Amino acid sequence: MNKVRRMERIVAISKQLTDRPCHLYSFGYFCQEFDVAKSTLSEDMNVIKAGLELFNLGTLETVAGAAGGVRYLPFRYSDNVQQMFMELAVKLAEPERIIPGGFLYMSDILFTPHLMAQVGEVFMTRFADCCPDYIMTVETKGIPLAFMTARAFGLPLVTVRRGSKVTEGSAVSINYVTGSAKRIQTMSLPKRALPPGAKVLIIDDFMKAGGTAKGMIDLAHEVGAKVVGTGVLVATSEPEQKLVDDYLALLILHHVDEYHKKTDIRPGKLWYSVQGGGTGV
Amino acid sequence: MNKVRRMERIVAISKQLTDRPCHLYSFGYFCQEFDVAKSTLSEDMNVIKAGLELFNLGTLETVAGAAGGVRYLPFRYSDNVQQMFMELAVKLAEPERIIPGGFLYMSDILFTPHLMAQVGEVFMTRFADCCPDYIMTVETKGIPLAFMTARAFGLPLVTVRRGSKVTEGSAVSINYVTGSAKRIQTMSLPKRALPPGAKVLIIDDFMKAGGTAKGMIDLAHEVGAKVVGTGVLVATSEPEQKLVDDYLALLILHHVDEYHKKTDIRPGKLWYSVQGGGTGV
Repeated sequence: MNKVRRMERIVAISKQLTDRPCHLYSFGYFCQEFDVAKSTLSEDMNVIKAGLELFNLGTLETVAGAAGGVRYLPFRYSDNVQQMFMELAVKLAEPERIIPGGFLYMSDILFTPHLMAQVGEVFMTRFADCCPDYIMTVETKGIPLAFMTARAFGLPLVTVRRGSKVTEGSAVSINYVTGSAKRIQTMSLPKRALPPGAKVLIIDDFMKAGGTAKGMIDLAHEVGAKVVGTGVLVATSEPEQKLVDDYLALLILHHVDEYHKKTDIRPGKLWYSVQGGGTGV
Repeated sequence: MNKVRRMERIVAISKQLTDRPCHLYSFGYFCQEFDVAKSTLSEDMNVIKAGLELFNLGTLETVAGAAGGVRYLPFRYSDNVQQMFMELAVKLAEPERIIPGGFLYMSDILFTPHLMAQVGEVFMTRFADCCPDYIMTVETKGIPLAFMTARAFGLPLVTVRRGSKVTEGSAVSINYVTGSAKRIQTMSLPKRALPPGAKVLIIDDFMKAGGTAKGMIDLAHEVGAKVVGTGVLVATSEPEQKLVDDYLALLILHHVDEYHKKTDIRPGKLWYSVQGGGTGV
């Protein structure tokens, strides 16, 4: 009986920890919730940590001290990450995804929860050292990916709007130039969305010239925030010189041949340094 | 050693199952992944199911037969759901949320992952019997909530755009009238987003007159899909007669007093029937 109860407890603790990545749970919380001593709980945590690590499902981090506790970190390092992006590239290269104008239809992938959950965890793994306070994106298609990145970090998401909305109160707006259409557009952020000094990680689904990302960086600076990183799911290889110097692209779109219905898209170099000028392919 | 390994395996299986709600994993998958016999795995599943149910964290469902397997259902029934919406109502009633025009600032809540994860699971619990194939929403602020509902269902999300976008290919558009501003607007859906006959659950963050929800229902019908339910996080009590007959609202906004900075918002009746005319408060 005692043995069964311990296993059930371990299932329940695992579920709660992994359900809310990066959230620091105090030991006291679990001791009370499950009516166990701290020493017993420590043993449970060792088992959970071992189980997660053994199967490449992330890890637990214990924080010592009065304000301490334990949190789940959804790190994704293993070979199957590379495999996942290979598969994603194959999927994105399907001929029926090519839209007149040389665009790729990506919405179905961008709105599939379990895929975006995985990509969000990859961004979290890659940008964990930057210690952001907020994840930032711009509407619309990048929202689920940015939201799942925010979930993996245990952070709130801030969404920049195109134009400004009456239902969000006073806002800061900037003009920016989209690289593809060379059109001047407006983007805005509610004043209350970011406190001054906040560290921001920018996540978006697609980058061509980098105008939209540049706009978000300018907007973040405008409200006194600091941009600590920029990540996109797909970046085009051309133009090589983007308006943003420093970014991580998980997939590189080399070429879309509308006539022959062929798309050349490949994983970027995930675990290399991206300092000073894109991922390099 | 054997005992420890079993616990580690249970941690890893729990994590994989709960990470992807409603996804049917074959027993063969786990037998291979963890190198165990099916009988051993069945015992593991019993432990996981008991652990989840004992602490109100959802349940496992076993599907028999050749195409069978096991899946995690994130049902949320317990008293702490009512408690959660009480707390959410208190948070939304904070005076500084009132925006000129009598709107409420909700973006910070709508973009907080662990809150939307919970609300998504409540929608899943409430609409599970409708067996949708897709979750549908309209840009922008409802996307995270709809996406987390899609995650809880293990389904893809379909996002209606305001206007139509060149990067999504040919689209079906309709005009609709927003209830609040009585303005005619356009919303569109890529043709390929929904197959004919698909069963659609509509999720949005806010409903006043119901014009936007009505627009989505019309758009769904236009592409040959069937709407099996409509859920919103917040609905206003006025107008009582919405443009949509049948919807579930988790919170009811009764009144915003801009002058005295007072907001009256309360949980709706979560577990009552909503057939024929709103939640009734």
